[in-house]
Amino acid sequence: MTSISKTISDATSTVKDTMKSAISLGKNLGIGNKDVGQLYYEELVPWNPSGAKETLEWFQRLILILLDFIEKTNDRNEKILDFHHPSQLMQAMDLSIPDEPQNLDQLLTDCRDTLKYQVKTGHPRFFNQLSCGLDTISLAGEWVTATANTNMFTYEIAPVFILMEAFILKKMREIIGYTDGDSILAPGGSVSNLYAIIVARHSMFPDYKKNGLRELPKPLVMFTSEHCHYSIRSAAMVTGLGTENCVEVPADEKGRMIPAELERLVQKAIAEGKHPYFVNCTSGTTVFGAFDPINALADICDKYNMWLHIDGAWGASILMSNKYRSPRFDGVTRARSISWNPHKLMTTHLQCSTIHFRERGLLRSCNSMHAEYLFQQDKHYDVKYDTGDKVIQCGRHNDIFKFWLQWRAHGTVGLERDIDHMMGIMEYQMDRFKSQPEKFYLIVPEPECTNVCFWYVPTRLRGMQHTKEREHILGEITSKLKQRMMEAGTLMIGYQPQGDIPNFFRSIISNPAVKRGDIDFMIAELDRLGHDL
Amino acid sequence: MTSISKTISDATSTVKDTMKSAISLGKNLGIGNKDVGQLYYEELVPWNPSGAKETLEWFQRLILILLDFIEKTNDRNEKILDFHHPSQLMQAMDLSIPDEPQNLDQLLTDCRDTLKYQVKTGHPRFFNQLSCGLDTISLAGEWVTATANTNMFTYEIAPVFILMEAFILKKMREIIGYTDGDSILAPGGSVSNLYAIIVARHSMFPDYKKNGLRELPKPLVMFTSEHCHYSIRSAAMVTGLGTENCVEVPADEKGRMIPAELERLVQKAIAEGKHPYFVNCTSGTTVFGAFDPINALADICDKYNMWLHIDGAWGASILMSNKYRSPRFDGVTRARSISWNPHKLMTTHLQCSTIHFRERGLLRSCNSMHAEYLFQQDKHYDVKYDTGDKVIQCGRHNDIFKFWLQWRAHGTVGLERDIDHMMGIMEYQMDRFKSQPEKFYLIVPEPECTNVCFWYVPTRLRGMQHTKEREHILGEITSKLKQRMMEAGTLMIGYQPQGDIPNFFRSIISNPAVKRGDIDFMIAELDRLGHDL
Repeated sequence: MTSISKTISDATSTVKDTMKSAISLGKNLGIGNKDVGQLYYEELVPWNPSGAKETLEWFQRLILILLDFIEKTNDRNEKILDFHHPSQLMQAMDLSIPDEPQNLDQLLTDCRDTLKYQVKTGHPRFFNQLSCGLDTISLAGEWVTATANTNMFTYEIAPVFILMEAFILKKMREIIGYTDGDSILAPGGSVSNLYAIIVARHSMFPDYKKNGLRELPKPLVMFTSEHCHYSIRSAAMVTGLGTENCVEVPADEKGRMIPAELERLVQKAIAEGKHPYFVNCTSGTTVFGAFDPINALADICDKYNMWLHIDGAWGASILMSNKYRSPRFDGVTRARSISWNPHKLMTTHLQCSTIHFRERGLLRSCNSMHAEYLFQQDKHYDVKYDTGDKVIQCGRHNDIFKFWLQWRAHGTVGLERDIDHMMGIMEYQMDRFKSQPEKFYLIVPEPECTNVCFWYVPTRLRGMQHTKEREHILGEITSKLKQRMMEAGTLMIGYQPQGDIPNFFRSIISNPAVKRGDIDFMIAELDRLGHDL
Repeated sequence: MTSISKTISDATSTVKDTMKSAISLGKNLGIGNKDVGQLYYEELVPWNPSGAKETLEWFQRLILILLDFIEKTNDRNEKILDFHHPSQLMQAMDLSIPDEPQNLDQLLTDCRDTLKYQVKTGHPRFFNQLSCGLDTISLAGEWVTATANTNMFTYEIAPVFILMEAFILKKMREIIGYTDGDSILAPGGSVSNLYAIIVARHSMFPDYKKNGLRELPKPLVMFTSEHCHYSIRSAAMVTGLGTENCVEVPADEKGRMIPAELERLVQKAIAEGKHPYFVNCTSGTTVFGAFDPINALADICDKYNMWLHIDGAWGASILMSNKYRSPRFDGVTRARSISWNPHKLMTTHLQCSTIHFRERGLLRSCNSMHAEYLFQQDKHYDVKYDTGDKVIQCGRHNDIFKFWLQWRAHGTVGLERDIDHMMGIMEYQMDRFKSQPEKFYLIVPEPECTNVCFWYVPTRLRGMQHTKEREHILGEITSKLKQRMMEAGTLMIGYQPQGDIPNFFRSIISNPAVKRGDIDFMIAELDRLGHDL
């Protein structure tokens, strides 16, 4: 080993041994030599071309702060959050926008404070959101992405990343079962769903792109379950249909759209002189985690010539699992489009959302605006990989590299194992809850995804008959218990109402780092915080 | 100094001295102790709770690769790109998606290769795009953002970041000159403009949200310059108006919308039974960098009761400059909305785009879908900062922290200085070009932004009269010269046609690291690569 590498190797070992005190080390790092903390941005590259050494030290000091946060996120003895009300937080740290530059020490303090008061969404006891976890490979990918800092319109300025998109999206279509088709990444599931809605319209009414909705013979109507994500209704507003023309179809007690109800409402719309054109099938509803029956909906779409879209933003990652894929996705290729967010159940960093079409060419013919100043056809390379005229965004963040790197690291088998592990933890959670029925009232007794919907029943209510009145009280207790959770900072589970059901908890497992012991902790902590409510 | 900090300090000095060979150091780092390169992801946190040491080493090795790229990006002796055709690139690196996990060494190789073949968009001789540069403070901010990995819907899960958005957006509205109002971040200028188009519609026709476009008495029409960004036309497709109802208004020879033409076309639309409702005023067109005349357009909007929106995605950063703000933005507060992308002329990392409204409340009343499962009003904290029901996205990437940190670092005065510096470099470039009129044919003799549009004239054409035929030849030469640039890898300037004008170069200065010497280099390199074409 060379002396240089030995020195670094020794130092690295030392750092490893002292990871827990990384913050205090960071403070000391610059002392002795030139203290970069007193420098200002202009003394770093790119402003100062000879500032490479100082720039390195700036990043080294930052890294210690980041590594400290990563370690705390994974330390079950650390709190998930240190809750402050907005007014308190504005006093606890300096959020102001100064006229004059701040030095590097102040900026490092800013970074440290920001992470100190941030919720650790990667903590194994954060069950609050559909996107949780902190995959340290995906994270590395995001750091590379930020360093490369490129836009995703053309091969010209993002050659590697554009090809990675092509590889990954093709692989995902293969997993879905599409033999051809086209796909794109979007900034979140709502925009992915929006793509499906406009592409379907363009496919069925090619003149609409030019002439607009008013030239169509009849008003268009779309259908979606009453349990669907609100982005479907939002898209009806954005695309000019109006929310009244987004018809909500009743769901059964498990949260799945009722096909007979869909057909009834389609016939009603036809009788009213409207044109039913689009059905959104949710695969993994936001609250219950329910899967609408694809084949039954596809039959109705065939009969009435409607476009079937699957909103799999949450549930589509289960396509990776041979164990859980069926029956949830039986008939999936009958859908003409499907959205799928790796940033949810696959723990890819935010954001990573995809939309896939069974048919090639539609995405481009719908969205192309012939912007020749950007997407010239006379370039000296093969422009077929350029994506710019397939999207509604123009500039597009690079959301692919982290996912590509993560997939390389885990392999397809590893990603499948993660899904199976999380579903297994959910089953363990259900077993534990079911063994204490007086304490946990289950809203959905047989979940289809990792969503577990329940009321925690405090001691005084355990003997009470389950009536509407009891539900009302449990709803009130839910928000009080959440407040105690936030203040304790030890556990985070989201809550919401659904239809007539008052507030209840929805715990989510979307982080492969969650172990059975974390479920045991959840149960004990709910008891500790809530038994006397 | 403690012995620990001294060891690290020594090692840091050593690293600094050897920054240029960071890559080879990275290879050696693990040797001697346990070589983490042979490990797989499952041996790191979060999968292996006792893998903190190995995780640290993984990140340390990655950082060396990233720092090497940062240094090369700022080294004028380094190439901007090492061009490979798609088929060559697919052979040069392994892009495949494997079934089995790859080890950390392979992943580090993947990261290294990715950066090796990526275009250095932060290189001071990359004049190709509206977003260039590599601000090392903004970059640090992106690393923090990735580490925090949170979604931006609520204060509950993003307390610090949600407040930062409120602070920054308020500051931006103050700079615009709005005394109240509301704002949001969007994934790029196209979506920012889309927000303006739907909010305007909602504001003027409140029933439309529910009933859709067909219930309005007349078809809506919007107006924009023929030089506008194509996202305006795209939004006409998305929102259901149809591209025919997005009327393109002729521009003058500088690329500015002609107000008399706007009024003529508005009257024509009215005569056709249509309802003119929206005028897009571009402040900084994509190709020419032109500014439409705000006051003249606002007068017409007042007269015909239309919403005036400013697409300042490119040019609005000039609002920061007391020197250049007037006359470009005279009358800016007469616009009811304005989009502004810090990721362009302010060198914030991709993406950072904002949309501002003069009136408070519209953004929420337009976009709210009353998604109670996510945005409960009965939380125990003040929910006024929650942004979830103001957006069409639901999940939203954290695009604020990098910008907040950058603004703290530069101060308002520093950001202003950067704008003035870049405009000054453009003026220098114009002076140099104008001193050699036989060599540089200027399409826009007096640019209003940092866009410089020109033909490079090779030796054989310098004596030729400037006719349509010569323009045609210059257009062909432009794409050939670009090919030579790409292959040389020393310089990147974009090209495009505009209306009847064949391909010409559009160089952009959007990186404060660009110096006069880089312009001198550009001129010499165009000569070297193109004189004999």
